[in-house]
Amino acid sequence: MPSSDDRPTVILAPAPQTTARIFSAERLADLHRRFRVVDLEQDDRPEALDAALPEAFAVIGQPTLDQERLSRAPRLRAICNVEGNFFPNVDYERCYSQGVYVLGCGPAYAPAVAEHALGLALDLARGISREDRAFRRGEERYVSDGNADAVLLRGASMGLLGYGNLGRALHRLLLPFAPELRVFDPWLPERYLAEQGVLPATLAETLRTSQFLFVLATVTAESEHLLGPAELALVPPGARLVLVSRAAVVDYDALLAGIAEGRFLAGVDVWPEEPVPADHPARSLEGLVFSGHRAGGIPAAFASIGDMVVDDLSQIAQGLPPLRMQVAARELVGRYRNRPVT
Amino acid sequence: MPSSDDRPTVILAPAPQTTARIFSAERLADLHRRFRVVDLEQDDRPEALDAALPEAFAVIGQPTLDQERLSRAPRLRAICNVEGNFFPNVDYERCYSQGVYVLGCGPAYAPAVAEHALGLALDLARGISREDRAFRRGEERYVSDGNADAVLLRGASMGLLGYGNLGRALHRLLLPFAPELRVFDPWLPERYLAEQGVLPATLAETLRTSQFLFVLATVTAESEHLLGPAELALVPPGARLVLVSRAAVVDYDALLAGIAEGRFLAGVDVWPEEPVPADHPARSLEGLVFSGHRAGGIPAAFASIGDMVVDDLSQIAQGLPPLRMQVAARELVGRYRNRPVT
Amino acid sequence: MPSSDDRPTVILAPAPQTTARIFSAERLADLHRRFRVVDLEQDDRPEALDAALPEAFAVIGQPTLDQERLSRAPRLRAICNVEGNFFPNVDYERCYSQGVYVLGCGPAYAPAVAEHALGLALDLARGISREDRAFRRGEERYVSDGNADAVLLRGASMGLLGYGNLGRALHRLLLPFAPELRVFDPWLPERYLAEQGVLPATLAETLRTSQFLFVLATVTAESEHLLGPAELALVPPGARLVLVSRAAVVDYDALLAGIAEGRFLAGVDVWPEEPVPADHPARSLEGLVFSGHRAGGIPAAFASIGDMVVDDLSQIAQGLPPLRMQVAARELVGRYRNRPVT
Amino acid sequence: MPSSDDRPTVILAPAPQTTARIFSAERLADLHRRFRVVDLEQDDRPEALDAALPEAFAVIGQPTLDQERLSRAPRLRAICNVEGNFFPNVDYERCYSQGVYVLGCGPAYAPAVAEHALGLALDLARGISREDRAFRRGEERYVSDGNADAVLLRGASMGLLGYGNLGRALHRLLLPFAPELRVFDPWLPERYLAEQGVLPATLAETLRTSQFLFVLATVTAESEHLLGPAELALVPPGARLVLVSRAAVVDYDALLAGIAEGRFLAGVDVWPEEPVPADHPARSLEGLVFSGHRAGGIPAAFASIGDMVVDDLSQIAQGLPPLRMQVAARELVGRYRNRPVT
Repeated sequence: MPSSDDRPTVILAPAPQTTARIFSAERLADLHRRFRVVDLEQDDRPEALDAALPEAFAVIGQPTLDQERLSRAPRLRAICNVEGNFFPNVDYERCYSQGVYVLGCGPAYAPAVAEHALGLALDLARGISREDRAFRRGEERYVSDGNADAVLLRGASMGLLGYGNLGRALHRLLLPFAPELRVFDPWLPERYLAEQGVLPATLAETLRTSQFLFVLATVTAESEHLLGPAELALVPPGARLVLVSRAAVVDYDALLAGIAEGRFLAGVDVWPEEPVPADHPARSLEGLVFSGHRAGGIPAAFASIGDMVVDDLSQIAQGLPPLRMQVAARELVGRYRNRPVT
Repeated sequence: MPSSDDRPTVILAPAPQTTARIFSAERLADLHRRFRVVDLEQDDRPEALDAALPEAFAVIGQPTLDQERLSRAPRLRAICNVEGNFFPNVDYERCYSQGVYVLGCGPAYAPAVAEHALGLALDLARGISREDRAFRRGEERYVSDGNADAVLLRGASMGLLGYGNLGRALHRLLLPFAPELRVFDPWLPERYLAEQGVLPATLAETLRTSQFLFVLATVTAESEHLLGPAELALVPPGARLVLVSRAAVVDYDALLAGIAEGRFLAGVDVWPEEPVPADHPARSLEGLVFSGHRAGGIPAAFASIGDMVVDDLSQIAQGLPPLRMQVAARELVGRYRNRPVT
Repeated sequence: MPSSDDRPTVILAPAPQTTARIFSAERLADLHRRFRVVDLEQDDRPEALDAALPEAFAVIGQPTLDQERLSRAPRLRAICNVEGNFFPNVDYERCYSQGVYVLGCGPAYAPAVAEHALGLALDLARGISREDRAFRRGEERYVSDGNADAVLLRGASMGLLGYGNLGRALHRLLLPFAPELRVFDPWLPERYLAEQGVLPATLAETLRTSQFLFVLATVTAESEHLLGPAELALVPPGARLVLVSRAAVVDYDALLAGIAEGRFLAGVDVWPEEPVPADHPARSLEGLVFSGHRAGGIPAAFASIGDMVVDDLSQIAQGLPPLRMQVAARELVGRYRNRPVT
Repeated sequence: MPSSDDRPTVILAPAPQTTARIFSAERLADLHRRFRVVDLEQDDRPEALDAALPEAFAVIGQPTLDQERLSRAPRLRAICNVEGNFFPNVDYERCYSQGVYVLGCGPAYAPAVAEHALGLALDLARGISREDRAFRRGEERYVSDGNADAVLLRGASMGLLGYGNLGRALHRLLLPFAPELRVFDPWLPERYLAEQGVLPATLAETLRTSQFLFVLATVTAESEHLLGPAELALVPPGARLVLVSRAAVVDYDALLAGIAEGRFLAGVDVWPEEPVPADHPARSLEGLVFSGHRAGGIPAAFASIGDMVVDDLSQIAQGLPPLRMQVAARELVGRYRNRPVT
């Protein structure tokens, strides 16, 4: 443990996250014990940030860090993005050449999103929320009457669109169902996917064969409207779609039309406009399970962000590589097109 | 393949199941190819059954087979119960001493029930059906606003009450969540449970420690109202209960009171009275996920009954033990108190 | 706990096993606490056994129990065979019609045999004992020089001949290697095997495709010399064979010839004559890993026999079915042709 | 596919590896199709390398690349180390600031080393090579006579010293044995280890409690003689040690003394001097299983290096991050003290 004088300086500027949400009291105490914390949570004056940069070892959060600011932060080693999206207000190229880790908190959300995705898939497979709603109207069905379209996950054909943190987390949960599991991910080599025990596949092949389809892709220029009308037309009748990544990946008109026509069922956690307009026709679709961008942001996920930040900053301060947050790839960090959650 | 003259005789009397539901066309053809089938599905005259008994090798279904009838079935080797409950209309003791297998189709339902139970647990963990209902009322919440009580299954304390076919099937699905998993099952030795990788526990200990509690016990004289008010009072605040076995195991007044008071949430598939009365207060409980005895009876489960029957009768006809249906234990078959599903 | 007067009577006649080997002190105390033990370990007089039979609830061991003796044991509920083979000195048919469980201790040995079989396979894959021997002669090879024929288990084609206790135990150990796993077992339906996640296959197909072949079959009239010269000729060049069940399953002349010619490598735990004759040519075969019938009989396996006996007799005494020993199938118990180990 | 003029330039200088060993014909053709290959395998003239550097996109191999040379390679994006050790002949700091990936082939060896380590552990658990040797001398033992010290891996206490590529690969193979698994790795945060399902532990605690101890640590200044006499004295009597990483981690005098005294058994793949001197006393130790640095270098491992190189260079050429080789951590690459294998 360094003496307090030697503690590296960490700038805490977690907005739009909050310190209270991502750090337990115990973890915040750990942070203060190991680092000199410059707390800017309530202080968004540019001069406050500027004053702290020359000594800064790390930034928790994602304030604007352009080339000029980075040039005045020679000791900077890490930017811990605690919000989930990489904004274009950081000069990432400069970070890499200066030896600054850009760290994301995707791994903190992945378990929560994977469990939610599985929950939606099981709901769609068995009509759980549909029959619960019917019960409240006094129209519930019993025994096999309500099960005409009920299917097993076990042994089913499934497809994952995207095999990053989230795809891997979901894959682990799906293993006991022994699915025939295809993955489409254009960023990953086929042999890599085969080593993970999945079947590498094209987008069309994945869509055509999957009784359960999980849309897990992040948004880039290439993946916008990855699933348009032509692609959704490939999905087999009666398929179950689970969409938990980003709305921009899917054409919602085509998606909702497919649900309305009864061609497939879908569980949808992300929406092009949030809140969904009050009079939106989705509100009465029987084949839809609605979820309000809730897959990742649960208390346990937030708490693990704080754990990861403290662990990885401690690693770096000891001359070791970070391990728990995701090191953003230099090639990819500028390609994400995720909109901030507001 | 025996010549048609030598084919053993099988009596097909599947009521209240139907042949069409449990046998695919292909499997029914298999059955007819291997056996001489006396089809009594549409013929419930006692004399029809009586006429077939002297040659019968097996009965598919559960017509009344008392001592007298069994005494006139010297070639009988198996009774394939295709309905899910063992009724007292068979002289089981006599079956065992005559060398007649009593076979149940629990293993056909276990995967479906396990998936439904997991689906209910994930719904309760994340408020899936609750938020979907809110959306339809225009009151949905977004992002972390709807997640205050959301929890992970991962790493949670869980308890299984009962570790038969169903408990084992659910255990497999829970493995990737790495739960701390306790099992209460008074019919199983502790070392057996420990070998399966679960923690043997008393009922009280299981109730007290489980964030997720799965009620999987069948009904016997001992297990009626296993969960009364005193037991349900042990459940920790905020727990999630999933009830998918038999209603008689639980005191419903206490269960519904606990949900109404917000002490726990519950997903309930079986009910003391089905249909639930139209004005039942459960119909407006926010902390309940209702399911109408739908956990097991899905098309894939029914189809696997036919597979199992053909496989096991073929085994027995070849002088091999049955493997796919459950051989009812002599000690237990008379102890079940399951009511028939009507 | 019954009062001492009510304790059921258990006859302890474990020869050729010994009480000391299969019961820890603690477990033997458990046995005495729950049962009235008639200890015949040192008393093989027929009259001693005869005297105990009228009250006997169970027999631990396998003394001669013919029809006449069984007829004088009306309270008998279980025969716990603690030795590993079912001898023809018991009237098994009579046992079944009298409601007497015939219990075997195969499950106690399965984990030990499975680990030994995997150890032999890894030795054959990598030349572990071969290179260790070379080292002792001063002829060892380093780095890749000794690895020309080294292969991975990972992703390999494997075959199991037999899928009983042992096959299932080995299957579990093989899972992380993600093999392409075929099983030949004529006693099991194809759909049963498919459900376990293996590929049901004919003997010829299994032999032809398996880089690793595990011979796990017990001996019956049908399986004697299951692997003769014609069958062994199907094995692909460079295959690794592991033989840990019974010698009678294999033609040793053909087996040893195949090893001598370098067509395959083999790890062999069972031998038609034990001890192997001093001048046997197998003693100098480089492609052989010898093992002296040691796969199952290790202290941990013996100790678990005692655990299982106490657990299952306690189950039966409580009116519950046994769970830890293997209930011998009426159809099969008379078909085993295993010779006693002497 | 870029036109041939646009193909990036790759320098192939794999010594001390060989092109023929790490690239199958098919993979080498892939390499040539995607890249313009400057083949320096047979040309170690400095001027040949110097001439290729200005256009070089990647180097396969590890020729000297000091600051001066790197400064003349402005297009360089990757150095694929195909040999297993990072030598000090590369200016790694400069690589990182220039945006050059330093890639290692540890993941290619990990499956082979993990299988070999498990093979050694099973040999030590069961005396496989010891009894095979005895058989060749005519002194073999049968059945339980040779099993007095035989133990199961199942349920055993195990320890891993080091949890990098190799530790993770071995962990996967150990899962079905359900061990109590401790890991000592000072480079990894406790919460990271706990998430992997292992027990984080100190070195002393790991040594004291492990019936099976796997030494998997790489060599750094800190880990030289990590296991000296004091540490080896902590190992419980009868433990099995498997050493497959680097000889410098262990004090061999203490290790061999412990084996000679019968305090523990060991499987040892790496030696401070290779070849081991002809008259070395280790050659007659009964409690040793010798292996001649053979754990990793098997044909399948070499072949996967070529796969990984082609996959990752293709990724980088497409503007995607590498995925199959290990990206050497800037913090660690200079700390390894592995001697080259000669």
